[in-house]
Amino acid sequence: MMMSAAPALFDPLMVDPKVSAIMSDHGLVTRMLGFEAALARAEAKAGVIPADAAKAIVMAAAKDIDMTILATASALAGNPAIPLVRMLTAQTAEAGQRHVHWGATSQDVMDTALVLQIRDCLEVFSGNLERLQAALATMTQQYRATPMIGRTLLQHALPTTFGMKTAGWLAGINRAIERLAEMVPRVLVLQFGGAAGTLASLGARGPAVSRELAQMLGLGKPVLPWHTQRDRVVETACFCGILTGTLGKIARDISLMSQTDVGEVMEGAAPGRGGSSTMPHKRNPVSCNIILATATAVPGLVATMLASQVQEHERGLGAWAAEWRTLPELFRLTSGALLHCCTLIEGLEINRARMRLNLDATSGLVMAEAVMMALAPFTGRLAAHHLVENASKIAISENIDLREAIARDMIIAQHLNTDALDALFEPTSYLGSVDTFIDAALKDAK
Amino acid sequence: MMMSAAPALFDPLMVDPKVSAIMSDHGLVTRMLGFEAALARAEAKAGVIPADAAKAIVMAAAKDIDMTILATASALAGNPAIPLVRMLTAQTAEAGQRHVHWGATSQDVMDTALVLQIRDCLEVFSGNLERLQAALATMTQQYRATPMIGRTLLQHALPTTFGMKTAGWLAGINRAIERLAEMVPRVLVLQFGGAAGTLASLGARGPAVSRELAQMLGLGKPVLPWHTQRDRVVETACFCGILTGTLGKIARDISLMSQTDVGEVMEGAAPGRGGSSTMPHKRNPVSCNIILATATAVPGLVATMLASQVQEHERGLGAWAAEWRTLPELFRLTSGALLHCCTLIEGLEINRARMRLNLDATSGLVMAEAVMMALAPFTGRLAAHHLVENASKIAISENIDLREAIARDMIIAQHLNTDALDALFEPTSYLGSVDTFIDAALKDAK
Amino acid sequence: MMMSAAPALFDPLMVDPKVSAIMSDHGLVTRMLGFEAALARAEAKAGVIPADAAKAIVMAAAKDIDMTILATASALAGNPAIPLVRMLTAQTAEAGQRHVHWGATSQDVMDTALVLQIRDCLEVFSGNLERLQAALATMTQQYRATPMIGRTLLQHALPTTFGMKTAGWLAGINRAIERLAEMVPRVLVLQFGGAAGTLASLGARGPAVSRELAQMLGLGKPVLPWHTQRDRVVETACFCGILTGTLGKIARDISLMSQTDVGEVMEGAAPGRGGSSTMPHKRNPVSCNIILATATAVPGLVATMLASQVQEHERGLGAWAAEWRTLPELFRLTSGALLHCCTLIEGLEINRARMRLNLDATSGLVMAEAVMMALAPFTGRLAAHHLVENASKIAISENIDLREAIARDMIIAQHLNTDALDALFEPTSYLGSVDTFIDAALKDAK
Amino acid sequence: MMMSAAPALFDPLMVDPKVSAIMSDHGLVTRMLGFEAALARAEAKAGVIPADAAKAIVMAAAKDIDMTILATASALAGNPAIPLVRMLTAQTAEAGQRHVHWGATSQDVMDTALVLQIRDCLEVFSGNLERLQAALATMTQQYRATPMIGRTLLQHALPTTFGMKTAGWLAGINRAIERLAEMVPRVLVLQFGGAAGTLASLGARGPAVSRELAQMLGLGKPVLPWHTQRDRVVETACFCGILTGTLGKIARDISLMSQTDVGEVMEGAAPGRGGSSTMPHKRNPVSCNIILATATAVPGLVATMLASQVQEHERGLGAWAAEWRTLPELFRLTSGALLHCCTLIEGLEINRARMRLNLDATSGLVMAEAVMMALAPFTGRLAAHHLVENASKIAISENIDLREAIARDMIIAQHLNTDALDALFEPTSYLGSVDTFIDAALKDAK
Repeated sequence: MMMSAAPALFDPLMVDPKVSAIMSDHGLVTRMLGFEAALARAEAKAGVIPADAAKAIVMAAAKDIDMTILATASALAGNPAIPLVRMLTAQTAEAGQRHVHWGATSQDVMDTALVLQIRDCLEVFSGNLERLQAALATMTQQYRATPMIGRTLLQHALPTTFGMKTAGWLAGINRAIERLAEMVPRVLVLQFGGAAGTLASLGARGPAVSRELAQMLGLGKPVLPWHTQRDRVVETACFCGILTGTLGKIARDISLMSQTDVGEVMEGAAPGRGGSSTMPHKRNPVSCNIILATATAVPGLVATMLASQVQEHERGLGAWAAEWRTLPELFRLTSGALLHCCTLIEGLEINRARMRLNLDATSGLVMAEAVMMALAPFTGRLAAHHLVENASKIAISENIDLREAIARDMIIAQHLNTDALDALFEPTSYLGSVDTFIDAALKDAK
Repeated sequence: MMMSAAPALFDPLMVDPKVSAIMSDHGLVTRMLGFEAALARAEAKAGVIPADAAKAIVMAAAKDIDMTILATASALAGNPAIPLVRMLTAQTAEAGQRHVHWGATSQDVMDTALVLQIRDCLEVFSGNLERLQAALATMTQQYRATPMIGRTLLQHALPTTFGMKTAGWLAGINRAIERLAEMVPRVLVLQFGGAAGTLASLGARGPAVSRELAQMLGLGKPVLPWHTQRDRVVETACFCGILTGTLGKIARDISLMSQTDVGEVMEGAAPGRGGSSTMPHKRNPVSCNIILATATAVPGLVATMLASQVQEHERGLGAWAAEWRTLPELFRLTSGALLHCCTLIEGLEINRARMRLNLDATSGLVMAEAVMMALAPFTGRLAAHHLVENASKIAISENIDLREAIARDMIIAQHLNTDALDALFEPTSYLGSVDTFIDAALKDAK
Repeated sequence: MMMSAAPALFDPLMVDPKVSAIMSDHGLVTRMLGFEAALARAEAKAGVIPADAAKAIVMAAAKDIDMTILATASALAGNPAIPLVRMLTAQTAEAGQRHVHWGATSQDVMDTALVLQIRDCLEVFSGNLERLQAALATMTQQYRATPMIGRTLLQHALPTTFGMKTAGWLAGINRAIERLAEMVPRVLVLQFGGAAGTLASLGARGPAVSRELAQMLGLGKPVLPWHTQRDRVVETACFCGILTGTLGKIARDISLMSQTDVGEVMEGAAPGRGGSSTMPHKRNPVSCNIILATATAVPGLVATMLASQVQEHERGLGAWAAEWRTLPELFRLTSGALLHCCTLIEGLEINRARMRLNLDATSGLVMAEAVMMALAPFTGRLAAHHLVENASKIAISENIDLREAIARDMIIAQHLNTDALDALFEPTSYLGSVDTFIDAALKDAK
Repeated sequence: MMMSAAPALFDPLMVDPKVSAIMSDHGLVTRMLGFEAALARAEAKAGVIPADAAKAIVMAAAKDIDMTILATASALAGNPAIPLVRMLTAQTAEAGQRHVHWGATSQDVMDTALVLQIRDCLEVFSGNLERLQAALATMTQQYRATPMIGRTLLQHALPTTFGMKTAGWLAGINRAIERLAEMVPRVLVLQFGGAAGTLASLGARGPAVSRELAQMLGLGKPVLPWHTQRDRVVETACFCGILTGTLGKIARDISLMSQTDVGEVMEGAAPGRGGSSTMPHKRNPVSCNIILATATAVPGLVATMLASQVQEHERGLGAWAAEWRTLPELFRLTSGALLHCCTLIEGLEINRARMRLNLDATSGLVMAEAVMMALAPFTGRLAAHHLVENASKIAISENIDLREAIARDMIIAQHLNTDALDALFEPTSYLGSVDTFIDAALKDAK
């Protein structure tokens, strides 16, 4: 098979090389030929075509296909299946020529090849999800008690731990793994229906051939052909979309923590990685960049897949073809984000000291809730809110620690003495259910 | 609760009234108050707040809230939770005032209320999906042997049956029901984490309160708070997106079959329904119109939900608020499409005679494949293809039946005699595995 | 006209009240009635209907319409125009009853009313764009020389000024104003074609009535009816989409500068604004939150509008109805983002001292390029890059100023003496073309 | 430059070959090298770098670049500009090595190369738009009086002419040409700002170099660098989105008219074009298929571009990279739809007889409005509506012509005699303003 030698310019940066290969033109055509070979064998077994015809077809399907000729011929035919069948027939020994593609339609071979591509991609995803799960579980365990500031709406809020943050990421990955498992049996199914989805040309032997063919390809056998019922492939698109969002959230968090102004984490170094052409001192967050790019680009692609479900009658006009470039790109991008996320988490450099420094940057203001909650049983939540709000304002305007402003307040002093305040202003004393949450997330990761 | 009396102009037409109520402002605020009441009760039970405080809060939460005041105050506060808690506190007896919203954050109440809305919507969906499933199963059984032309790329292709077409629709609905069942336990969970997701203000009693609260609300207890892990709500959005596409496919098929030029089916009549203001003779396909409108609008909304997953740290800036109007609209539109589809299928008028007429409209050309497949064992598939293609061209150019053109061909005549051709040109004799497919789809619908 | 009294819960927070009114149900129906009145007057003037018929219709169109009845009836009819015409006829004096809606079709009145809504929204946009332009111009002038760190990929890069940053924002707004001006004459046109777009029922008087009607409504007269040529309305959607992105970029920048960890700017204070229910010390960036929410939600809505262009024949099935809820929401959201952006810029509190502090936070590393560029004429760009990269690594690993690490390097010392280095490390000395750029942006804003 | 020999599998079918070349990896890298060469020449002219340095760089930029090495190195660097500059430097003679990429940043070269790609694509678009405009104008003129049925909601409505339908298509293309002209000067501008957009490294000579560089490349000079102000590129995306919708509407109409059940038009034949692998008699609407596929896929891509506007500070993290694969794909797909539309219109086979046949298919029901309008001056519009509605029902239930049912009605008979009815039932007599509309659309096309 004559193939392009050079990778697409942005592929090594943005796509998992395994998925790049699976979702390439070559990856598609190979699987289309695989379908034709399996079809021949299944039909021979079911007595639909002669055994030596099948043998000839199987042999021909193993030979190279000139991709340039195929691509050019597709332009006229309207899809690559028609010329591929013609080219395959031409290179099949005479015994098989009559029986190439027997009873199948263009969409049978293209859809089944797509499902085989999806299967192989999902296998790559599965491996990387487990890799990411393991890395996140390790990180969560390691930093479960490392205090850092929790941030809401990009403002310092209350203390949390870095392990609590990564436990949230981990829980998202756990659910992705769960979703993948549920989806696989539903979506990895054969497409085989013939020209109008009735397998008319196989007479009574349609079910037998289908069963055999599905088994040979390692796919499930669907209830009926699904040429214009696209919910299965769209479901895989949605899976990619949800997963990419989960990864995007991780990358957003890390990119914000990586800001020069925050400095709590940094992407792992590698020679030649993330350098800036003009600013020699910088280490750019390359992985976050790609993950976030993917999270930006994927929703639109999923929308296309959703929109392309409205397909006419027994073979759609337009909407099916809308999938051809969209779904592969969706898998390519998702794969790159997932692989980058593995690298990102495994190589992440964590700066505990800076986390602690940032926690203290607001002079105790982030402990305001702790004080308020301690005060509330005495004064009620609203009054406590007002008291602490006032103290906070004083702390800000006079540029003093909240601890000091609180101590000055006569009403508060009635309820909380110095020892109580000392304890209240220790961040690690105000972590609530963090341990329980982390344990639960880790348990699901096993 | 002062509420808008007038329905939104397009709601009765485009939204299931039950979902319209659930996903209304009133539906949200009622569930927010329900959360606050349940929280008070759970905290009383766990010994966090006094029992009479809880009682006072529960009583206050049952009172009306002025929606205009709430909406106006939300504008300043940035979300409706802050002023709602303030208003609820103001109408709570003194014993409870100190303990309203204890330990919770704005997003806890808003997210949990959203999950309760989703739960109630999914219940409506579930009912309508089963209703639609039943209607489609009945239709499939009834028309399983009603021959009609199968169409690919909007061209007449091969015979199929109307029941085979509806079996395809049915199979999609079967899978939607299956997906719904898988999704429910994962997504219908409590949100409760406090200001930074640690439940810090509850000290050691966070897990106990969570457990109690989840149980009272009839929700699952998540591994950890998910303020910025939005995959669950996004999963429900994807469910809506996939379902709407499945419905859109049905409506597209029906709208095409309803064309004046095709006339195979017609939407059910109702007084005042689908009339045209200027064309008194027309019956407009109102339900198809709305289902297709929804299928056009929903992908963009799902894309928004997917994009909004990238949320910062412990509470997102922007992306969370992007959900507020998007997800309810998504459920509203999906509900309307689903309800219209029930009406559409249940009321559909089917014109068997016209189906048969259309089947014969191409003078036998649609039987070309049958002839080709019958011929292929003798001549090989490619040669058969060429022979039949030629006969077809003759049939078209001379405006005769394909049956006649075929009979004239000397090569074909060697292999297929008159009796064979008679049998080949009977559409119902060329339906392949239709019965097997229909049985399988019906089996899944039970 | 009986109307809902209570505002939609999120409207005061997320929508410009003027646009909220224009794009409400009431706003639509009022303009539909306005169309019917103007149509009657235009037809009377053209001699198509009697003058007293027109008078009666104009009077009736000024009366209230029961929105609940209208909404309910729309559900049966499939759109609100059909029952509105019926209700209007019922409340028209006998002289006019025969001539209500004469020669028009549902989509004529709905589309023209939509164009009138768009016109009024664009007027609001225009005012707010000029307001924002003025505020940004003032801010740019005021802070044109205020040095701050330029950031690329969220890393400190090189010095810039705050006025240079705002000049970039301003230039975007300048282009939005330019685009609006270009778009207006193309999109603000009448829709009037009758049932099949031919104005058949007006005989030869179609053009005369059209001309008159357009003039009365203050709209342009299109080349021909555009019932299924939606590029005009879609163009307004794209305008909203581009504008919202421009605003989103501003909000993203400000929200990042507002981070507790950065502290360079802060949203203006207002009583009750941006408070946190649990963290009394926080001031939440409410406006940024809403602008970013809108920037997240709008692309999906624009995608829907783009997708809805594919409309069938003389009146689309599905795609037109897909616009009904989408375009108004798009204008609503865009209006809110624009209004919030005005408030945001006008009230923004700028912390020059913190900007300077952050500029110095990397111990001179951000001046690395200045040194490299000064060195390059002597050593070549690549060698200079390597030398400065090494010095930067030393500065980081030994935790010293880059100035000091540079001074130690023997090769650099050959080319740059102490005075040269002093000048090189002054940030304001390395601002290149900032003044030229700012002047150009300000000039366009006049 | 080592390049992939084989075209991407779906490119010949779905992409204009000219745009395929422009928007290829090779097309990008060539233009990046063109930028570097022009930069060197501009800087030499402005006295920033020596003349022989510029000469050396220009010579080096004309040499081949190994795309595989470049792609692999991009993966580490995070974008292709960094390694390209390194590779270019390596192949530059010593005199120039120090001055390659002088003062520029990665995004300067990538964005300017993108703008050059866009310019060349828009030129291709412009040519094809004019070609399409001419074909549509000819078709409109030719069929201006060819009666056919107008269809609303896929139902037969009223007579129109085929030329009126194509005039609507033409008017959309006219507006696309107008939009293109407005957009070009705004979007075809240089990107040149250096690392933080200040051109700091060029000192006072930034403006002079910019001016020179823009002129050499044939681009406009923007007010200021626009690294994170993406509205210009997004505007081109929106242009593509609107145009694709306009083309999609044409293809939808044609595909519906091409239905076997309608048969009014047929895509032009070509050897090997649109054949079906299993149905020898079919001619598939290949061009409509691709145009509709594109119209389905493009909105999601535009949404991505809109979403990617929210870019941080002086260089975005994620959102810029989201453009890299999205915008080229958008142009590729749009180009294919446009080229297919040219072929489609130029080759379209029109079946006047079938149009007339279909017009008569409803036994005169489509003339109901004509009768109603003729009746209304006597009875009022509503009464006329009811009378004709009744007659229509009788016509349908008794399966007679409306003409006959109308003639039976005593009330109608009072107002309309036999001659009047004869005239009313002639379709071409009820075409209203069709001629005026067509003339206006043709005038704009000149």
